[in-house]
Amino acid sequence: MALIVQKYGGTSVGSVERIQNVAEKAVQFRKQGHDLVIVVSAMSGQTDRLLGLAREIHERPAGRELDVLLSTGEQVTIALLSMALQQRGCPAVSYTGGQVHILTDSAHNKARIQDIEGARVRRDLADGKIVVVAGFQGVDEHGNITTLGRGGSDTTAVALAAALNADECQIYTDVDGVYTTDPRVEPQARRLGRITFEEMLEMASQGSKVLQIRAVEFAGKYGVPLRVLSSFEDGPGTLISLEDEDMEKALISGIAFNRDEAQLTIAGVPDQPGVAYNILGPISDANIEVDMIVQNVGADDTTDFTFTVHRNDYDKAMELLTDVSRKLGGRTVEGDKKIIKIALVGVGMRSHAGIASKMFKALADEGINIRMISTSEIKVSVVVEEKYLELGVRALHDAFGLAEAAEDEADVKAKI
Amino acid sequence: MALIVQKYGGTSVGSVERIQNVAEKAVQFRKQGHDLVIVVSAMSGQTDRLLGLAREIHERPAGRELDVLLSTGEQVTIALLSMALQQRGCPAVSYTGGQVHILTDSAHNKARIQDIEGARVRRDLADGKIVVVAGFQGVDEHGNITTLGRGGSDTTAVALAAALNADECQIYTDVDGVYTTDPRVEPQARRLGRITFEEMLEMASQGSKVLQIRAVEFAGKYGVPLRVLSSFEDGPGTLISLEDEDMEKALISGIAFNRDEAQLTIAGVPDQPGVAYNILGPISDANIEVDMIVQNVGADDTTDFTFTVHRNDYDKAMELLTDVSRKLGGRTVEGDKKIIKIALVGVGMRSHAGIASKMFKALADEGINIRMISTSEIKVSVVVEEKYLELGVRALHDAFGLAEAAEDEADVKAKI
Repeated sequence: MALIVQKYGGTSVGSVERIQNVAEKAVQFRKQGHDLVIVVSAMSGQTDRLLGLAREIHERPAGRELDVLLSTGEQVTIALLSMALQQRGCPAVSYTGGQVHILTDSAHNKARIQDIEGARVRRDLADGKIVVVAGFQGVDEHGNITTLGRGGSDTTAVALAAALNADECQIYTDVDGVYTTDPRVEPQARRLGRITFEEMLEMASQGSKVLQIRAVEFAGKYGVPLRVLSSFEDGPGTLISLEDEDMEKALISGIAFNRDEAQLTIAGVPDQPGVAYNILGPISDANIEVDMIVQNVGADDTTDFTFTVHRNDYDKAMELLTDVSRKLGGRTVEGDKKIIKIALVGVGMRSHAGIASKMFKALADEGINIRMISTSEIKVSVVVEEKYLELGVRALHDAFGLAEAAEDEADVKAKI
Repeated sequence: MALIVQKYGGTSVGSVERIQNVAEKAVQFRKQGHDLVIVVSAMSGQTDRLLGLAREIHERPAGRELDVLLSTGEQVTIALLSMALQQRGCPAVSYTGGQVHILTDSAHNKARIQDIEGARVRRDLADGKIVVVAGFQGVDEHGNITTLGRGGSDTTAVALAAALNADECQIYTDVDGVYTTDPRVEPQARRLGRITFEEMLEMASQGSKVLQIRAVEFAGKYGVPLRVLSSFEDGPGTLISLEDEDMEKALISGIAFNRDEAQLTIAGVPDQPGVAYNILGPISDANIEVDMIVQNVGADDTTDFTFTVHRNDYDKAMELLTDVSRKLGGRTVEGDKKIIKIALVGVGMRSHAGIASKMFKALADEGINIRMISTSEIKVSVVVEEKYLELGVRALHDAFGLAEAAEDEADVKAKI
């Protein structure tokens, strides 16, 4: 008997019929003797409908009122799901974020959870009830309704699991787990049985859209085992957890990539203290996020500085960089929007040398020229020309044998 | 400068455009220097849409969950109206019932307001904000969301007006006031400038559907001046207030009638203590509400007992009464579904004799036979055959000169 927090997204509760399915699943689960807390999103389409009404009235509606409006979406779902559970003879009770004191800061539309009072939920669980909680929402210290921003329901589920010391937090979604890479690019891509929080963060921030980054960070911080599963088919999904010995077997967990980047280079800038700040200061002042940064010192006391930004920010960044170059006496400013980033992710890198060189060789064998390299403890990222995306991902997937299961998947099947 | 609580029903906020109209009206009002609290219902159609979803899932959804669901309707409206006010440069803030501590009992779907904490609203008003509150909803002492039942938004408005000691509570609706009688029956019917709480209660309970009875009771109890106005056209509406000297001028305020009644008679029952209870006990045990009751003692130590019930309850009541008659040894049981009730209402009756006889004469002059009579301090009700409804109402309207204004309407125009 375990305590499980399950989260179902908007698609999984997108119609009365689908809500019935979730209830059916939950009742089966309950019959196995587990305690269950279910976090739900708004029925798909509802948030957009409400946003549409708001935009008809105000071009930029106030954050506070927008939260009052949008939070009704999940409130509808919790009531309907509770009714569906009760209809199946299963005691259930619904709570809004405020009712279980999901305390957040006051940053409307993108609030952060600060505390959860789990006592009420624990009492209901002890009474044999399934507790249904509205995701995505909370209250600030003044009792104002807040929302956590898109995808915030994942964070609600993880935070509840942490507060209740749950055995597992299960995120039901429309994919059946986390893959070694995007199957649309590499048909050989394999569902991972297990992955660490750190790896998942690197995968997610590089473009895998399965889970909200904040939810993964939160789960990692509190050591909440997180499982990604499909709402629509049975299967063990992917377990995201702390690193343990079994994992050493896998060198590389996956390959992430990002099509949304663009590269800018300022060359021949005098190499002196503060140059990086002088270059990137104006960029960040304009709220442009910088991803990779590479700096090389040249022979003539000048330096070449290259970084990547989101493609949407490219034109603005180029304009700012041209200004900067004039001020600093740079030689040239160049840029390229037709680049992509590929990253190899795996905790195994820590204990194995030669991963990077194997990666570079695999790319070289395909004639792919590397434009930038950046490494971290569990990741090697390269920037290459856009046209090499598919070729590069497949070459690496093959070179590191990702299509074959690196460990026995059976041993990470749901223990519960 | 006054503090006004305004309430707009579902039709008045039924579309984005209508919400804009309400905002426009409120801003004009605010510009005159008044403090304003606005109570709103769900946009028309929303409550039925939500009920439909619930019924797809559960034939008899639990009251608690139904309240969680339905309360989202008003929550959407408060957010949208606040945005519309802000869009016009008018500071505004929205609150759900729970957020302004509209404390109710725990009778889900038909909760009663027990207390309101007005401090937060007062602070916002002092800050120059228009405060927008969700009608129809509250929280119980455990923080569960409750609703007051259909029409409960009127009660919310009155309760807020009482808690804030407001100068007036204005109920905006789709009629422009309270009439001497239903204009569809008597085209000469006249909008009343003023009416007392008691009269309004008698009018409402007899079928005038303008205001919720509970809201009128509440306003009367706390002496909150209540005004009924049209959302769609300008005008002073009807002021419902405590009795004062000016009102003595009007003998009769209005004529109410009710088409939904049916009459039952048990005749020849031995007249002994407890007979009324023996007859009506089984009826009320079956949750059938009894309206008029008349008992006549006969010459032979038996009694005839007649009462009216809602037509929908007629068959059931007849069945029960037949049982009762067998047990009590009654002579006959008779009934009639084709009757209606007409009532003359007016505080002036208190100080003027002869109202009832004038009424009976007016009906007799038209050849209308009276089947039952019941009187209270400010009302005389008669039951007559259904076919006499229009004739009876018009005869009385004419006999009591209701088409002519009994007082100068100008003096009851909105003082504010």
